[in-house]
Formats: sequence, structure tokens, C-alpha cells
Amino acid sequence: MRLRLDLAYNGAAYHGWQIQKKPLPPPTVQGALEAAFFKLAGQPVCVTASGRTDAGVHAWRQVAHVDVVKELPDWAKSLNAVLPADIRVLAARRVADDFHARRDAVAKTYVYQFWQGQVTPPLLANQVWSTGPLARDAMLEAASRLVGEHDFASFQNAGTPVRSTVRRIYSIGLETARDELLYPEGASLWRLVVTGNGFLRQMVRNLAGLLAWIGRGVIEPVRVGAFLAACDRRLMPAPTAPAQGLGLFRVWYEADALEEFMRRPPAFSPQAEI
Amino acid sequence: MRLRLDLAYNGAAYHGWQIQKKPLPPPTVQGALEAAFFKLAGQPVCVTASGRTDAGVHAWRQVAHVDVVKELPDWAKSLNAVLPADIRVLAARRVADDFHARRDAVAKTYVYQFWQGQVTPPLLANQVWSTGPLARDAMLEAASRLVGEHDFASFQNAGTPVRSTVRRIYSIGLETARDELLYPEGASLWRLVVTGNGFLRQMVRNLAGLLAWIGRGVIEPVRVGAFLAACDRRLMPAPTAPAQGLGLFRVWYEADALEEFMRRPPAFSPQAEI
Repeated sequence: MRLRLDLAYNGAAYHGWQIQKKPLPPPTVQGALEAAFFKLAGQPVCVTASGRTDAGVHAWRQVAHVDVVKELPDWAKSLNAVLPADIRVLAARRVADDFHARRDAVAKTYVYQFWQGQVTPPLLANQVWSTGPLARDAMLEAASRLVGEHDFASFQNAGTPVRSTVRRIYSIGLETARDELLYPEGASLWRLVVTGNGFLRQMVRNLAGLLAWIGRGVIEPVRVGAFLAACDRRLMPAPTAPAQGLGLFRVWYEADALEEFMRRPPAFSPQAEI
Repeated sequence: MRLRLDLAYNGAAYHGWQIQKKPLPPPTVQGALEAAFFKLAGQPVCVTASGRTDAGVHAWRQVAHVDVVKELPDWAKSLNAVLPADIRVLAARRVADDFHARRDAVAKTYVYQFWQGQVTPPLLANQVWSTGPLARDAMLEAASRLVGEHDFASFQNAGTPVRSTVRRIYSIGLETARDELLYPEGASLWRLVVTGNGFLRQMVRNLAGLLAWIGRGVIEPVRVGAFLAACDRRLMPAPTAPAQGLGLFRVWYEADALEEFMRRPPAFSPQAEI
């Protein structure tokens, strides 16, 4: 019986999603989940996610699948009872045996959080990158040059080789968190919301790093085209943004839901055709 | 030279504000601050806060004062460089030698965060109390019976005896956190915002516990008057809300600023005269 798991986690305590085969394996989200299944079902399972997340990266809603023999009345509740509080199962439901969390995903949305105030609020410490003040217009101009189908080789950090480095970014939004109580004057908390059909290794963190450097005036937005054309990370002179600002926000399996998300107010800009 | 410190902290890792004189003292916010001053100025100091916070309680903006001999160009920056990331100095400025963070405070505002969804989001795990669904109208009716000047002895947990248990609550607001991205349908995150001229030991947590029990339909709002009249914590049949949901939001030293805060939209209800 195949289950689809919708998961949220705080990545601060984990060495990323994927189990590491080492004599003393560090804590990972996948490892914690597989241990929870073993505890509940006495059966070793393999939990397959829509994609790995790096050490320190969070998930508002990651999706995974797993095959289990045992039937439980409420897998989500049972799993949450044995999982640590920084990993939560938002939903666990039976799906067709051929559902595949990674292969069936049509798109993903990541959120990268920038803090622009002088002092990083302690309650957000592991969830933001403190960049100092950013210029929104320059960032949006750069974003408009990144949206669409491009070879993003310049935004890929070294790792497992991939067949193609061409990806399509559907939209890059830059939103100000609104909170009447905590940020009455309009916030220092900005969120970069990036939706695409797939992402290379640390691609969102490299996009966030470049946009931050452009927002700080270190790099001109007009140079984005040359960085894309170079197809070489070493020629893209911005840092990889730190992991703690990044969160996997949604994994999309149906184009309808994705389109609805992209239509929602406040409208994203700029956008490409899905 | 006296400094006023405006502080924010994540209380999760601390045994409250106040230094504990024990052979192996547990980590406290006051202890961390005094260690930072010792490191920077080589001088033992005593940091006096507007009031203690319990173990696990946060501060969006606590205020304290301290006397130092050394002059530094930017105390806030220097302190933040040696403090852990879960304690931040938002501002450090020279004040009159007779400024007293506790005695001069005219009012305080606390925020208590309730999470009503089925699953507590991992990124909020140490900052909310998961109560299940709450009925707002019943809670506001109860709140209207608590606002004003009352003997709050029934809302005081055992501790250091105080001269009087009469306090004045200026307002109790119940706000829904708004966040278009994270909670597009209007949130499961509710914030109780309580402003008063002073608070007894764990008084806000007892108010939050009672209002949660009323919101869950366990206790009728009409009984609030009897609980106040009883002047005995043992006759107030609601739990003390857990520490992690509570944060000290503001300490007010000027009535003007307090009145302006209470006038801000969304308007609080109910309110008493300041």
C-alpha cells in the first residue's frame, strides 16, 4: 500500500533530507521518518521525497511517498506521536501504487526569506538571511531576466552530474510579509517566491544570492543575461545564500493547482507561461 | 553611566530572565547579558529588567538598565557580537542616572500565541500553544469581564509574596495573524494581546489558560466574575498556559506611546481607561 506524505520540517537540526551512509550517520529528515515507520510498523521502509533539501533548509510542505504493509487508522497522527516536534506529518493518505513523489511533480515553489533590519529577530534567527537594505526594483528587474526557460548551469553548485541544466522558472515574486502587530510599518521581512519546473543543486540559493547582491547594489541587473550565457558557476560573482533562509514551500502535481496559486493576490511578477 | 537596553530573545534555551544562584547555574538571559558586559568591559555589572520572564518565555522587546564605566561607540553592536543569536540588543542608549527599567514602567503588553490547526508548524513549535479550535466570541465576552481594575489573586501562581494583587488591565485583544503567503485562508494563529499596568506571577499565562478553556467551551464566560471574586488560584479551574506561547511584547514608559499603541488598527476590544 502506497502512502503520500505531506511534511513540514524545521531543518535547523538536520543534515538535510537524505540519509547518509556513514558509521555514525548524522540526523536527517529521511532518517527520522524511516525510524518512525520502523517503530510503528516494525518494517524497514524507504521514504522517497520530491527532492532532497540541504542541511538547514526547511519545508513548509514537502511531499514524499512510502510503501507500507501495515494498515493504521490514522498514519499522520501515529507518525506525529513518535516523530520529533521539528518534523510534522501534515497529511498521510493512500495513493495509487504508481504515484511517485519525485517523478510525478510538475513544479515546485521555494521561499527564500531576507531580513533587512539592523538586528535579526531571535524568533526568526534560523529562518532568514540578514542582508541589510535591499532595492526592490533592481531585484525585480533582475528577476524578469531569470524567468522563463534558460540553461541555469551558472546557478548550479558542484554535485551529482545532471543530464540537462535547462530549467523553466514560471515566476519569481518578491513579497513583503504583512503583520499588523509585529511589523506595523511594513516589514523588514521579504520573501522571494520562486516557482519552476525543476531546480538544480542549490539553484534557489544561488538565485537568492545573486538577487541579494543586486538588491544591495553590488551587481547591476543588466548583467544577469551574461551570467546565464556563461554557463559556469565560477563566472557568477554572487555568494550562495545561506541554507537557513530557504524553505520548500509547495510541490505541485497538478497544473491546475499551480495555476491557481500563481493567480492569487498579491500577484507575482514577473511570470512565464506554465 | 546608565544604559537603557531594548532586548529581544527566544526564551527556549533559557531558564528565564533571572540569574539563579546555584553551584551549576542554568543558562539565563540576565546571565548571558552580564557575561557579555564582562567580556566587553572587564567589569561585573548587574542588568535590571522591567520584570522577570519565566523559563521558555520570549521577548519581542524587553527593557533593562545597566550601569557601566567604559564608553563604547556602539554598545548594541558590540554586545550583539558576543551574545548568542537567540538574544539580541535592539537598542542601547544612554539615559538619565535615575532611569529604572522596572520602577519607571507604566504598563506592559504581552502576546500569547494560540495555534488552532491540527498540526503545529515546526517553524512555530516553540512559540505557540496548540489548543485546537477556539470560539472567539466566548473568549471576547470573558475578556470584557477581565478588563479593568480587579484583584487578580485567582490568576497568581505561588511565588514571592506581593503587597497587593490588584492590577488594571487596559485591554485584551484577540487578533488573527494575517499572512497572504503562509495563511491565505486566514490563520490558525491567534494572538492574545494583553496590556496592563502590571502583572502578577504567571498572570498572563493563567489568563491565557482560562480564555483557552472558555474558547474550547469547557468553561462558561459568565463564570469569570466568580473566579475573580474567589481570590484563590485553586478555585480557578483552568490550566496555566505553557510558557512557550508567551512573549513580552512591549514595556511602556510613556502614557502617550501606550495610548497610540492602543488606538492602532485593528482596534482592540475590550478596553478600559488608561
